[in-house]
Order: sequence, then C-alpha cells, then structure tokens
Amino acid sequence: MSFDRLIEGIVKMQNPTVAGLDPKLDYVPASIKNACFEKHGKTLEGAAAALFEFNKAIIDNICDIVPAVKPQAAYYEMYGWQGVRALADTIAYAKSKGMFVMTDGKRNDIGTTMEAYATAHLGVTDIGGEAVEAFGADALTVNGYLGTDGIKPLLNICREKDKGIFVLVKTSNPSSGELQDMKLENGAAVYEQMGRMCEGWGEELPGKYGYSGVGAVVGATYPDQLAEMRTKAVHTFFLVPGYGAQGGGAQDAKNAFDKNGLGAVINSSRGIMCAWKKQGLTEDDFARAARAEALRMKEDILSVTGEIRTP
Amino acid sequence: MSFDRLIEGIVKMQNPTVAGLDPKLDYVPASIKNACFEKHGKTLEGAAAALFEFNKAIIDNICDIVPAVKPQAAYYEMYGWQGVRALADTIAYAKSKGMFVMTDGKRNDIGTTMEAYATAHLGVTDIGGEAVEAFGADALTVNGYLGTDGIKPLLNICREKDKGIFVLVKTSNPSSGELQDMKLENGAAVYEQMGRMCEGWGEELPGKYGYSGVGAVVGATYPDQLAEMRTKAVHTFFLVPGYGAQGGGAQDAKNAFDKNGLGAVINSSRGIMCAWKKQGLTEDDFARAARAEALRMKEDILSVTGEIRTP
Repeated sequence: MSFDRLIEGIVKMQNPTVAGLDPKLDYVPASIKNACFEKHGKTLEGAAAALFEFNKAIIDNICDIVPAVKPQAAYYEMYGWQGVRALADTIAYAKSKGMFVMTDGKRNDIGTTMEAYATAHLGVTDIGGEAVEAFGADALTVNGYLGTDGIKPLLNICREKDKGIFVLVKTSNPSSGELQDMKLENGAAVYEQMGRMCEGWGEELPGKYGYSGVGAVVGATYPDQLAEMRTKAVHTFFLVPGYGAQGGGAQDAKNAFDKNGLGAVINSSRGIMCAWKKQGLTEDDFARAARAEALRMKEDILSVTGEIRTP
Repeated sequence: MSFDRLIEGIVKMQNPTVAGLDPKLDYVPASIKNACFEKHGKTLEGAAAALFEFNKAIIDNICDIVPAVKPQAAYYEMYGWQGVRALADTIAYAKSKGMFVMTDGKRNDIGTTMEAYATAHLGVTDIGGEAVEAFGADALTVNGYLGTDGIKPLLNICREKDKGIFVLVKTSNPSSGELQDMKLENGAAVYEQMGRMCEGWGEELPGKYGYSGVGAVVGATYPDQLAEMRTKAVHTFFLVPGYGAQGGGAQDAKNAFDKNGLGAVINSSRGIMCAWKKQGLTEDDFARAARAEALRMKEDILSVTGEIRTP
C-alpha cells in the first residue's frame, strides 16, 4: 500500500535509480533483430520478439545493482498487441529477477474506467470466477487532471495489493510549464496544486518510512521546482525523469532527496539502454555497457546523497 | 488532417453520435462467453475472444446508422495483451464496415514518447523498412497536461495521415472541477485555458467545415461549461461523453452544437451496449437492442439540433 518495498530495495542496493526500458527497435543490435526477423519476418511479432530479447539482456545485467525498472508503455504499443505482449513478458521477467516494476503509462480517466486501468496494470481481472493478473506491475504512472474520482480506484487496489502510483506533477519536458507553471488565484502554480492533491490522496496509503503510496513525477530538468516540491510534499515519493539524455545531472537530481537520501528514485532510459555508444563499444556490447553505466550513475547519485538510510 | 471525414459521416447519416465500445465481460451474454470459455478456457484469451464477438455483433447492427465507434482502451488492457489484440481486431473490423474509429486512450507524455503513442495509435510503425499499422485508429483522445511538446508529434501524424485528436478539456466526472475549474491568475479556469491551447494547436490542422483536427473532450454533465466552450473554442470539434448512463440528456448535449447542428459528436457506451436491460429484452437480444437504442438516441439528439448541414 506504499513504496516501502521500493524503498527497501533502494536502501539494500544503495542505489536510488530506476532503469527505463523504452526500447525502440533502433536501439536493438542487428544480431538480435536479424535473428527475430528470420523467425517471424519483419512484422510486429518480429519486432516485439527483438524488444523482449533486448530487455532480458538488460535486466540480466543490472538486476543485482538496480532495484527497479520502468517500461514505458508507448514503446510497446508502437509494436501493436504483439508489442504489448512483450511489455507483459518484460514485467513478468523483471519481477522474476526480484525487481520492482513501474509501468509508465500515464493513464487517466473517469472513475469506472480508471477502475479498469487499475485492474489492468496493478490488480487482478475476474474471468468467470478465475482471478488473472493482466499485467501485474508494482506501480503505475498516472495523470491527475480528472481529479479525485479518477484516482480513487487506484488507491483501493494499491491498498489491497501493496502497489503504488506516481502522479504527474511537474514533467521534465521543455513545454511542461505552459499549463503546469500557470499561477492559480490561490497563489499556487498548477503543479503545486497537483502536489497538494498527491499529499491528500497519499493520506489513505501511509508507509512506514514516511512516504505514502501516492508518489509524484517531478523532472530533474526543473531543479528549483524539484527542491520546492521536496519541501512542500513531504510524504510524496518522487519519480524523477530527465537525468542523462534529457540534460539533468546529479546536482539537479539532488534536490529530490531528503536528509536520509530517501524520497526519490531517478530514472535513466536512453542513458542505460544506449550506453555502448558513449563507451566506445560496439552495439553487441549493449548489456555490458548498460551495467557499467548503471554503476556509474549509482556512484554519481550517491555522491550527492551520501549513504541512504531509513529514518 | 481534420475531422472532415467524421463530419461528412455525421451529415450523411444525420446522426452526431458515437457508440462507445467499453465492453466488460459482465456485459457479454452467457451464450457468447461460454462458447469462448469452452474454446480457450477461463483465460485472458477466452475473455478477449468474447469481447471481440460482442463488439462485432454491435458493429454489425449499428454501422449503417451510427458513423463512429469509440473503443475505450482501459477495458481491453484489463484483459492483458490478449484484450489489446481484441482492441486491434475491433478497430480493424469497424473500419472495414466504414466506421470512423476513435481510440479512447487519453494518452500523454513528453515529446519523444508521444511520438511513439502517435505512431502506435494513428500512424505507421517502421520495422526494418516495412511500414506496418500497429492500431490504425482515425482519432485518439489525449491529455494536454504536458503542454505543446506532448501534442506536437500528434499534429504531425494527423497532417500526414488525415487523423484527429481530442484533448481533455472539461471531463464528465463528478470531481473534474477539482483542478479543471480552478481559476488562473489570468481570470480563466484551467479548462478554459486548455480550450485556448486546443484552438492554438488546431491552427496547424484546419478543416473545410470550420473545425480543425484538434478536438476537445467536454462532458454533457456540465452543460454550462459546454455552452461556454462552444462559444470560446469555435474551431474545436467536441467529443461529448456523459449522455445517458452518466446522467446527461439531449437538452444538456444541445449546448455542444453550432447553428448548423455541427461541432460535436455525442458518446453513449453503456446506454447502447446494455440497452436490452432497459427494453425488457433478454441478454441474447443485446445487438438488436443496441440498434434500437442508437436509433432512439439519434432522434433524441436530432430533436435539439434539427437537420445537420455543412456550412
């Protein structure tokens, strides 16, 4: 019902990072692609098989040093239902290796429909009396634009199944401020208001380390707002994109953490998946390079947090 | 690059409605479910097969009188990748019957990732030089919380492929006002600001009937805001949920239309899918009942719009 499991993984591995699995076919080495195309043709099925092989190799090479993965749903949907099958397979594989899995789907809808999304990604689907996990992630990113009744069904499932959600608060992209930075009559910016709503929703899902099961997405590309929100949303655990390929560094991400080095998990996707390019290696070395980059990133972040402790 | 095709369908059929295909397994008659469970077991595959059979029967019975369908992604994801395959099959089937298909996914993300969603749902995926449609809908609902660079990739694909998007502006649910109704310092409510952004984005996708390819979701459950937005977002075509099961009637939906009876398409999901209940029929009559309800709804809406004409 909170992020306690994630926090325990972070402390155990002394690594507050999550590896984003946003695999474009372009990132997959020719050797893997060709083998899959030979078997399935240049089809959605062939592409999806290649993505899953790629993901497995990344997971195998980082699962003992990185506590969590975050597959981005868009990059699987791009390859049709076959791609979505690769998403399901990736989630199951990462869980089998003990990783905490956050599906980055940014789902949002009205109450009855949100119940379906919550069931799909975090819960259990009833099929004529049989209970089946459709995707079974540990956490899901969501968009709170629809207000409380678009969030409530998630809270119920988080409580029952020990899962969490991350609500978009201040996103990492250049135009995030167009709406999110606008000032409301009450003096708060829209993102700040969304952060308040997260604190409110989180009261239903308290955690033993001070952080609830309602987290927030706050980008490393806006370090001032990150620092502001860390002070204002003290029970809200942050998922921080924007490190690495998007331009944020450890000094920016630093603002996401509390004095114990807790309070946030920093995401890197392309930085890890395409690490071989920066390391002067060949594409066939992608998995080994991903591990080296994950270790470098861990040290980089730890240099600003110091040892991570539970309170 | 606009909603011209949808508008032409509406005028031809004199029916500004869209049938929502949000099939829960509970809505599917036992005869269909049991046949699918016998073949595939009580599995995600069995459930997905039942949903697709149900959808086909609805589509067969309304495709000559209703111009569009709106499958809601959540209800397919709930049944895993197998459910998502049923979504793809449903989209293809509805298109083969000449219907305009809007995938209700409320997708949103930063630019590079939104490109993947746009490709997935409206565009064409490149697989080693082969161009493959992953889902191939005609329109997609999206959430604009991330601002312009989360919308731009959609505009590019809409222009190239003659597709459209509907951005959430004022949603139909009870708590939609928590954020959307908050007043900004500039005097506008958040939903109004989002409507302005739709008008701006729409300038890139002009249509020949005055409506751009950037539409907005505005709920029939808030008739005053619907009337307000019709006046303020004059080039923005509305997708209007909330009619029927959610409580809105034709008098509420009326505010969505311009003087020609254009400007909006009204959605009904449960009202059509579960029409047999209200008509005192048995569940095996669901498809016939859906047609009768679609005809009743058409007359109900036309009674407030009068004849629908292009300008």
